[in-house]
Amino acid sequence: MKPIGVFDSGVGGLTVLRELRTALPGDDFVYLGDTARLPYGTKSAATVTRYSLQCAKLLAARGIRGLVVACNTASASALDALRAAHPAIPVIGVIDPGAEAAVAASRSRHIAVIGTEATIAGGTYQAAIRRLDPAARVTAGACSLFVALAEEGWVEGEIPRGVARRYLEPLFAVVAPPDTLVLGCTHFPLLRDAIRAALPAGVSVVDSAATTAAAVRRQVAAHGSSRGVVTWLATDDAARFARVGSRFLGEPLSAADVEIVDLGAAG
Amino acid sequence: MKPIGVFDSGVGGLTVLRELRTALPGDDFVYLGDTARLPYGTKSAATVTRYSLQCAKLLAARGIRGLVVACNTASASALDALRAAHPAIPVIGVIDPGAEAAVAASRSRHIAVIGTEATIAGGTYQAAIRRLDPAARVTAGACSLFVALAEEGWVEGEIPRGVARRYLEPLFAVVAPPDTLVLGCTHFPLLRDAIRAALPAGVSVVDSAATTAAAVRRQVAAHGSSRGVVTWLATDDAARFARVGSRFLGEPLSAADVEIVDLGAAG
Repeated sequence: MKPIGVFDSGVGGLTVLRELRTALPGDDFVYLGDTARLPYGTKSAATVTRYSLQCAKLLAARGIRGLVVACNTASASALDALRAAHPAIPVIGVIDPGAEAAVAASRSRHIAVIGTEATIAGGTYQAAIRRLDPAARVTAGACSLFVALAEEGWVEGEIPRGVARRYLEPLFAVVAPPDTLVLGCTHFPLLRDAIRAALPAGVSVVDSAATTAAAVRRQVAAHGSSRGVVTWLATDDAARFARVGSRFLGEPLSAADVEIVDLGAAG
Repeated sequence: MKPIGVFDSGVGGLTVLRELRTALPGDDFVYLGDTARLPYGTKSAATVTRYSLQCAKLLAARGIRGLVVACNTASASALDALRAAHPAIPVIGVIDPGAEAAVAASRSRHIAVIGTEATIAGGTYQAAIRRLDPAARVTAGACSLFVALAEEGWVEGEIPRGVARRYLEPLFAVVAPPDTLVLGCTHFPLLRDAIRAALPAGVSVVDSAATTAAAVRRQVAAHGSSRGVVTWLATDDAARFARVGSRFLGEPLSAADVEIVDLGAAG
């Protein structure tokens, strides 16, 4: 049985992989982090689409039965092109599952979305939510430092809590505040405790990693009979991928297990 | 009289430009931020050299009488190639001036250097200091969050001070601590107050932006008779360049004054 392919510009997508392994515990995965060309968030949609097609082509050449785009920027720009290039397998991004879960969770129909500067400025979550509920009100905020805190592993204590308060309090200190918060960046689940501590009581937190894993479970038939093997691929710096990635994955990851691949050759 | 050319991967080099304008108040400058391809720090030395040669070629085509490499990564990788390609003008990087100032300032000959993860792992400042004083002891630390704090404009108050304490206290809480700290990243001068507050009394802070400006003043004859005009060039997103860049420059910068250039065409 073929594995499920997952790609991201770096290690952030490992929070999605972590949820996928929980949702599909007996399945195999192949994860590709395009670490040589990160970040995708500051690049044009045409470039991100080209890179995403190269990632998908390399994964498809290894044989996969589903493709998970575990990157907000690639999900926003490249999903249609990826589906056109790979019509025989389900292609699932991280934005629609998060938007669906948010619309389902919100009673007030006022939803807050946080993400990177590029994701928020691009308005993709805002548009996905409004497609599902045209009357929904969406408050969006960029939380750039959360990415650096997650990569540094500073996820507990006064520093992340102070940063979370500074970003989140203005979004919720309004009349008729949001009742749901979407973590619209794959790095943010690492800061879940600090984020929760900065929120008013009763706010639902929607994690796009967990909701994407649930969508994959619905759209890609679980195999369930394997040992849950993951093949690790990256385009640069296996040592950093393993070191920083371990925190995102929540378990140790060895640089010796990371195969460096050349996407130029796959283009 | 020709202007002095300055390039960086983004807005960080504007702290160097700010010092250059103070050191050479009657001179003209042309600043290029390669914002489409940032960050340079995660790319290979060969790629950074190729990008740097493209930046220099575009600036040289406009006519410059000196070239300032206001980027640590490009200074570490591309200085020799840039000098070979542009033998008729002085080419000045940010690393050697900072190392020289640190060796001059330190009495204990124990120097601390902070920078990005890539700069510290590459060991360039450490090597530059040891070339000048082979007996010097160098303690180095990566301070990744300082970059995000500077770009976000969070340079005052408890968050940057807490981050500075967390990074710096371990470097100085040792027997025979360093007596000099080199700010080995063009973003860090924005956090100078928070950094100073986290240091033991008596530690000298060497700012590579200011020391580079002094080196340029020595090596490129001041013209001094112009109005101090700056031509602004970037490879992407004039709005973000102007918005974030204003904080680095210390004065307002309008997106309408930023010309977007294509370095592919200059390569």
